Amino acid sequence: MQLGMIGLGRMGAGLTRRLIRDGHTVAVHDVSPAAIDALAAEGAVAVPELAGFAETLDAPRAVWVMVPAGAITQQVITSLAAVLEPGDTIIDGGNSYYRDDIAHAAALKDQGIALVDVGTSGGVHGLERGFCLMVGGDDAVVARLAPIWRTIAPGIDAAPRTPGHAGDPAPGEEGWLHCGPTGAGHFVKMVHNGIEYGLMAAYAEGLNVLRNANVGGVERTADAETAPLAHPEFYRYDVDTAAVAEVWRRGSVIGSWLLDLTAQALHEDPNLDSFSGHVADSGEGRWTSIAAIDEGVPTPVLTTALYSRFASRDLDDYAQKTLSAMRKGFGGHEEKPTGE
Amino acid sequence: MQLGMIGLGRMGAGLTRRLIRDGHTVAVHDVSPAAIDALAAEGAVAVPELAGFAETLDAPRAVWVMVPAGAITQQVITSLAAVLEPGDTIIDGGNSYYRDDIAHAAALKDQGIALVDVGTSGGVHGLERGFCLMVGGDDAVVARLAPIWRTIAPGIDAAPRTPGHAGDPAPGEEGWLHCGPTGAGHFVKMVHNGIEYGLMAAYAEGLNVLRNANVGGVERTADAETAPLAHPEFYRYDVDTAAVAEVWRRGSVIGSWLLDLTAQALHEDPNLDSFSGHVADSGEGRWTSIAAIDEGVPTPVLTTALYSRFASRDLDDYAQKTLSAMRKGFGGHEEKPTGE
Amino acid sequence: MQLGMIGLGRMGAGLTRRLIRDGHTVAVHDVSPAAIDALAAEGAVAVPELAGFAETLDAPRAVWVMVPAGAITQQVITSLAAVLEPGDTIIDGGNSYYRDDIAHAAALKDQGIALVDVGTSGGVHGLERGFCLMVGGDDAVVARLAPIWRTIAPGIDAAPRTPGHAGDPAPGEEGWLHCGPTGAGHFVKMVHNGIEYGLMAAYAEGLNVLRNANVGGVERTADAETAPLAHPEFYRYDVDTAAVAEVWRRGSVIGSWLLDLTAQALHEDPNLDSFSGHVADSGEGRWTSIAAIDEGVPTPVLTTALYSRFASRDLDDYAQKTLSAMRKGFGGHEEKPTGE
Amino acid sequence: MQLGMIGLGRMGAGLTRRLIRDGHTVAVHDVSPAAIDALAAEGAVAVPELAGFAETLDAPRAVWVMVPAGAITQQVITSLAAVLEPGDTIIDGGNSYYRDDIAHAAALKDQGIALVDVGTSGGVHGLERGFCLMVGGDDAVVARLAPIWRTIAPGIDAAPRTPGHAGDPAPGEEGWLHCGPTGAGHFVKMVHNGIEYGLMAAYAEGLNVLRNANVGGVERTADAETAPLAHPEFYRYDVDTAAVAEVWRRGSVIGSWLLDLTAQALHEDPNLDSFSGHVADSGEGRWTSIAAIDEGVPTPVLTTALYSRFASRDLDDYAQKTLSAMRKGFGGHEEKPTGE
Repeated sequence: MQLGMIGLGRMGAGLTRRLIRDGHTVAVHDVSPAAIDALAAEGAVAVPELAGFAETLDAPRAVWVMVPAGAITQQVITSLAAVLEPGDTIIDGGNSYYRDDIAHAAALKDQGIALVDVGTSGGVHGLERGFCLMVGGDDAVVARLAPIWRTIAPGIDAAPRTPGHAGDPAPGEEGWLHCGPTGAGHFVKMVHNGIEYGLMAAYAEGLNVLRNANVGGVERTADAETAPLAHPEFYRYDVDTAAVAEVWRRGSVIGSWLLDLTAQALHEDPNLDSFSGHVADSGEGRWTSIAAIDEGVPTPVLTTALYSRFASRDLDDYAQKTLSAMRKGFGGHEEKPTGE
Repeated sequence: MQLGMIGLGRMGAGLTRRLIRDGHTVAVHDVSPAAIDALAAEGAVAVPELAGFAETLDAPRAVWVMVPAGAITQQVITSLAAVLEPGDTIIDGGNSYYRDDIAHAAALKDQGIALVDVGTSGGVHGLERGFCLMVGGDDAVVARLAPIWRTIAPGIDAAPRTPGHAGDPAPGEEGWLHCGPTGAGHFVKMVHNGIEYGLMAAYAEGLNVLRNANVGGVERTADAETAPLAHPEFYRYDVDTAAVAEVWRRGSVIGSWLLDLTAQALHEDPNLDSFSGHVADSGEGRWTSIAAIDEGVPTPVLTTALYSRFASRDLDDYAQKTLSAMRKGFGGHEEKPTGE
Repeated sequence: MQLGMIGLGRMGAGLTRRLIRDGHTVAVHDVSPAAIDALAAEGAVAVPELAGFAETLDAPRAVWVMVPAGAITQQVITSLAAVLEPGDTIIDGGNSYYRDDIAHAAALKDQGIALVDVGTSGGVHGLERGFCLMVGGDDAVVARLAPIWRTIAPGIDAAPRTPGHAGDPAPGEEGWLHCGPTGAGHFVKMVHNGIEYGLMAAYAEGLNVLRNANVGGVERTADAETAPLAHPEFYRYDVDTAAVAEVWRRGSVIGSWLLDLTAQALHEDPNLDSFSGHVADSGEGRWTSIAAIDEGVPTPVLTTALYSRFASRDLDDYAQKTLSAMRKGFGGHEEKPTGE
Repeated sequence: MQLGMIGLGRMGAGLTRRLIRDGHTVAVHDVSPAAIDALAAEGAVAVPELAGFAETLDAPRAVWVMVPAGAITQQVITSLAAVLEPGDTIIDGGNSYYRDDIAHAAALKDQGIALVDVGTSGGVHGLERGFCLMVGGDDAVVARLAPIWRTIAPGIDAAPRTPGHAGDPAPGEEGWLHCGPTGAGHFVKMVHNGIEYGLMAAYAEGLNVLRNANVGGVERTADAETAPLAHPEFYRYDVDTAAVAEVWRRGSVIGSWLLDLTAQALHEDPNLDSFSGHVADSGEGRWTSIAAIDEGVPTPVLTTALYSRFASRDLDDYAQKTLSAMRKGFGGHEEKPTGE
């Protein structure tokens, strides 16, 4: 099948390579000519200008946009629509807000161009493992593009079949799913990332408890304001967090791909000295919490994980200073020069 | 190797079977003669009375206790110690509080009996998958029992080797780990379960957001006290949560064994009508939070997950009534007859 | 000074009475003729039809809208604007979303009508205590209406003067504040309510801990799944929560008006049997959390308090059932028939 | 009445002065002779050595211990008991863990000495405002000391009487309460402080949202990893947090003594530049959360407030680094050099 691809960064290049390998024709474009050349050398069709998609691909065309979400995505979609024809399809495979999909689809509708939104998970490992695809859009268009989804997705062998499933695999079992109308793909991907934040925080917090299991043997400041550790004898373990992450990978209830990655990171750098601990967040976690609030359903774990990232970047600074000011006000407590 | 096993429930029976299959001699005891007989029929050595372990096993003996944590475990350890000899070892493989291990080890020390604490993860699937073992105790004793750990654990093939590991596999890579002195095994298992609570809550909350993604199409009460949904057009998705759980199993960042189980559960009962939503907690989650508080490290996600379980059992009842009483006090708000 | 008032419910009537008492002329309108008559009997000028405001009040007119936020407020503002003139002012004193203020102000601008948004706190006690006013809008308009704000607000004597303040009281010291341009009043009120949720939850949770301080003397189910209380001897207190709320009102660090109300509620109904514990939320708490997320600042306590209200209305149902399903999946755990 | 007082710091000195002013005889001791001299100059009886209490006071004696909780309190109690007689009473008015009270009372029982535990709230303002007293111990002993409690407590005029109360004021209305047997006083005080943490955090988080209400006008990094602010036009307010805290003091639902103190602190230092934001915690907040966990009741707001303090002291460091390591692992994300 033919597909256009705009944006040849880590993700776009990985998608392109999987498609080429599987025999599809991929016409590629990027703001960087070098990026185009690199993939052309691997068998892709170079499209130096957006307008080239119209002639390179046969109608009905499908062009996958894989660029940063927000203003850039919107701009590329607009420009691309200008060179496509009624009946063509634009696929937004980036991390767009699903509400933007709804706006984009409405705008494209007048031109007779379909928008398909695809939440794409897999990161830098997707090229080898395949990407998990969460797709939103019109039935017919999504169905027509099934060969593309199938190639990009990991396939049914990527995991043992769930007991109870039988016969021809459903798309979800192959690693791609048509989740609903426009925006549904990015909505599901949004929640996916919200969950991801929660899972990551769970591991991180637990490892931190293990890391500090030796506080009973550490000298601590004892003054009127700091409660002494009542039972230091219970906190005298020097836990090898890298080894623990490794052992949990086999047979435990908490095995996961994130744990696999954690074990690797801890093996390489057990003290994690190469990191500062300022943790970014990329939007989906925020949007998930906003969706929960709008829906009126509680997501305390997911939102707590999000807020913890904010705090890691010291965005709670004024709040914490307010606490210190209050403590001084009612108790005359002076802040201590350092942490604990 | 020889091993005694006390407690032939789901876990104890699973452990025994793995050991027998691998050629070990397992002497088994349970309060239920039928349970003893069943395993004897599979090749175990029946030990109808605790005292029988002394003669059935060669010194130095090792007997694994796999009974409910707390009073029962303590009682079995005490009774068992009375029939063992100096040099023998008692293994507590249940979900004991690591602080109890420290007390038990101290008590047994006078008799010259070693205590080894083992956190055992794997649940009902452990018989086939192998059990992840987190072991605490003296070096020599733990080392001597390595053949036992090795048989019970899943082995290195249970997961792809972490990049960077080479040569002979470390024990952790085989699925068992000597975590430190007495109590360290159960300490690590405790944190394991604390993490488990957080992971579970992350999936559950996210699926609930998906489940309610259609609230924009649902009629809602509009009155002075309830904020209307500002943008119902953004919440019109009927998401198939079972299919979503399935698709996430392949290629996504949030794939895990817990997700595999969730996909299976949702496949069998998408509306989860067979459950009430009163979620039990078994101790480790509580102890993990207490450890975090003692250590002074924040575990907001893990503790939030724990509290959410408490609330699922309506243990926040008086607190919520207090809120309603306050609202009536300052605003004259009457509670509504039903939920939303 | 002259003022129009639309909406004569608890809040609107209280505002009108404070204004009349202080010598202002208040022209009143409501969908209920009886409500109009009642206040006319107390000295207000009856305005049976919206159009009547134009003739009853001298230009530049100011009309306060005190109706439910959302669609009704928007509709009243639109209808009112149709009968007012350039130079007039509409005051939205309800619980509107500050984003709606921005939209309303923009719409009214073309007609030369000013919008002033006022967050009004005080509840059913405002008539006697005065209302705390958080005002947003153009400087000149807000300044012109100062006599109105001053009458409605509690005045400087409502609290001891903050050390460091001297001379003529600032408006904030009188209980009203011009917080900034359009929307700023409702923004500050929104955060005020967000804080209110957090404060309420703090008291409620603490009282619940006291309420359950006797669990050590209560028979609890002991089974393999439920951790026994390790130290029942530490939980044998029968705490009189009503008396505790009362004692905290004097001299403690946590004294507050909310505590005063709580003490009263507990005095009347110590077991709070007259409440179900389904706690409503009215919008501001949600918007505060959304603002925090948009700003990227953590508000874990405020959002947790919000989510706790959602959960009190069982909106976490599907999530909790998912947890039970997982527990059954990995551990074979069956739900218990009842709570704990 | 006669009373001994050991520990003449801020709190002990304040208590002593209130008692002297009201005509009680107070025999005072401290490790610092200067502290003894200072209060002797104000009318207290100097007791240079602990043994002096026996002769200075008439039996049955009562000596109030007001020294740092933990080891020092225990040591003073032990030393004091050695010089007292059967029938005497030791009052622990510090911030002791209620479990220690139970141990101390048991130890003193053999000597015939009673222990009364008193949670004392009021901070540096208690001298003028009076202290809120939460008392635990035997009925007869607590009743005998009523004149002491009454003098120290603020008295009924410190707050308007709760509607429904009539006749002679109950002790709680005077600001002291016999909460139950040994430990009950410190248990209630513990929960009081747990609530205090939650209240403080609620204000602090809300003020932080106001402080950052101008993010829409601030230049923000826009890159692939950071979600842009979707609606900067909604975040263009420069809120004067000091003025807002002041206005909330009059007529609002969230007025409180903590708010009074916050308004004062913000008036003196609106940017709070004199604080670092490393917030200490003194034990009661931790114990409250542990009590909640033991009881099985959820206190998500209180524990979240506690954890937020831990995080302010960077005790989440390893956890946050773990998150960064995971993000690098699955997405190739590099940490940014600075915060946001």
